[in-house]
Amino acid sequence: MVSQMKSLFFLFIFLVLSKTVISARKPSKSQPKPCKSFVLYYHDIMFGVDDVQNATSAAVTSPPGLGNFKFGKLVIFDDPITLDKNYQSEPVARAQGFYFYDMKNDYNAWFAYTLVFNSTQHKGTLNIMGADLMMEKARDLSVVGGTGDFFMSRGIVTFETDTFEGAKYFRVKMDIKLYECY
Amino acid sequence: MVSQMKSLFFLFIFLVLSKTVISARKPSKSQPKPCKSFVLYYHDIMFGVDDVQNATSAAVTSPPGLGNFKFGKLVIFDDPITLDKNYQSEPVARAQGFYFYDMKNDYNAWFAYTLVFNSTQHKGTLNIMGADLMMEKARDLSVVGGTGDFFMSRGIVTFETDTFEGAKYFRVKMDIKLYECY
Amino acid sequence: MVSQMKSLFFLFIFLVLSKTVISARKPSKSQPKPCKSFVLYYHDIMFGVDDVQNATSAAVTSPPGLGNFKFGKLVIFDDPITLDKNYQSEPVARAQGFYFYDMKNDYNAWFAYTLVFNSTQHKGTLNIMGADLMMEKARDLSVVGGTGDFFMSRGIVTFETDTFEGAKYFRVKMDIKLYECY
Repeated sequence: MVSQMKSLFFLFIFLVLSKTVISARKPSKSQPKPCKSFVLYYHDIMFGVDDVQNATSAAVTSPPGLGNFKFGKLVIFDDPITLDKNYQSEPVARAQGFYFYDMKNDYNAWFAYTLVFNSTQHKGTLNIMGADLMMEKARDLSVVGGTGDFFMSRGIVTFETDTFEGAKYFRVKMDIKLYECY
Repeated sequence: MVSQMKSLFFLFIFLVLSKTVISARKPSKSQPKPCKSFVLYYHDIMFGVDDVQNATSAAVTSPPGLGNFKFGKLVIFDDPITLDKNYQSEPVARAQGFYFYDMKNDYNAWFAYTLVFNSTQHKGTLNIMGADLMMEKARDLSVVGGTGDFFMSRGIVTFETDTFEGAKYFRVKMDIKLYECY
Repeated sequence: MVSQMKSLFFLFIFLVLSKTVISARKPSKSQPKPCKSFVLYYHDIMFGVDDVQNATSAAVTSPPGLGNFKFGKLVIFDDPITLDKNYQSEPVARAQGFYFYDMKNDYNAWFAYTLVFNSTQHKGTLNIMGADLMMEKARDLSVVGGTGDFFMSRGIVTFETDTFEGAKYFRVKMDIKLYECY
């Protein structure tokens, strides 16, 4: 009888634990806690508005005229990433990739890029893509992979526009939360 | 003796369940069941062929002449997504992204885009990329991430061209199956 | 007593196995072993330098003048993938996608593409994106998804430039390691 009770207890423990394991792959209402998280600032200085010396990005297509919000303007960038808001701070990473404007009635963009880390603290990359719904205060993009210190990572990057100086310069706060780490 | 039998029974149950968990991450011949699935229709109306009022996409590069199948034509889009085939139905999402033609001997394309959901039923995004092998009836692209209601999702989108009206309009049936949900 | 020992033994076995399952999703210092790995060679022959007959890729934008290293040149490709270094060997796959140059002080690139397999050995696709840090001997990009035989795969592709013949032809060794297979 005692041993039957014990066996039932082990079964109970097993079911509790296995549910934890299973739930990691099944739908749940609550988001899990990030395994890594950090906040970075992205600085974009447009070539043509600023000069070769300062510019970190350049448009490679012209808007074809679908509306008045730069629809179809494609920009390639190699932008510095810093820990604070000062674009002249020592970069902790580069953001290499592109964005384009894609809405005819308002400003809206789409990004795909790689965060290239090469500091004493982090070496490796994070690969990111998603819509930048500029009319919303905060918008989420996907971290779809990583290498080096971020081997096989996945997660979410939340964009918030921090400042916008006409066509010359803008700064985005990137709040990175990784939910899959190895 | 009875208790030994019971213990063996628990072991058996455990092995069956744990195999389910393990197999979610290991190679297997059979595909798992989707945790979410739905069918959507994508409508693309080309600017230049149609006007600013109706158009939902625009070419931003010209084919450089590598073959006769638009190789190198890059199109940026903000296309309506509906539950049925009527492009004037109330959209349940927008598809924001780009495609380009990339074959010199036949029509073939490559897509990267975000499905932006903003309905009472779904809020959030799905990020998608992959080859659109237009010569095949059905072709699979990857859902590489998601946000909001689709937090961290992964899966497969199967494209089937539903109709094609010259260069002006085409409609693609997108059969979305998510195999990783949170 | 014997049955209690047995139950404890089963609990021990269970804990060992469940830890294995859990650890597949948690941070660890050592990289796991790939579930699939193979080496492929990517061949790119530029249109304009070579003719329509031979070319497998074409530039669709012109560098806007940000530095002297082709910053902003965007190339769309449908390149043969072979098992050895000979670009005339029977292709085992096509690489369909794009790259662009994105650095003003040196050559550096960014890739997004699909490996399309259509051989007796493999049918399906792998979707890949990431920075190609050309100044480094080996650089890692992310496999962010797969279809067909590579259903839902994830992993790492390591690029090594194998040869470079001016602007006409280059060959990259792609060492593909998948760490998530189904």
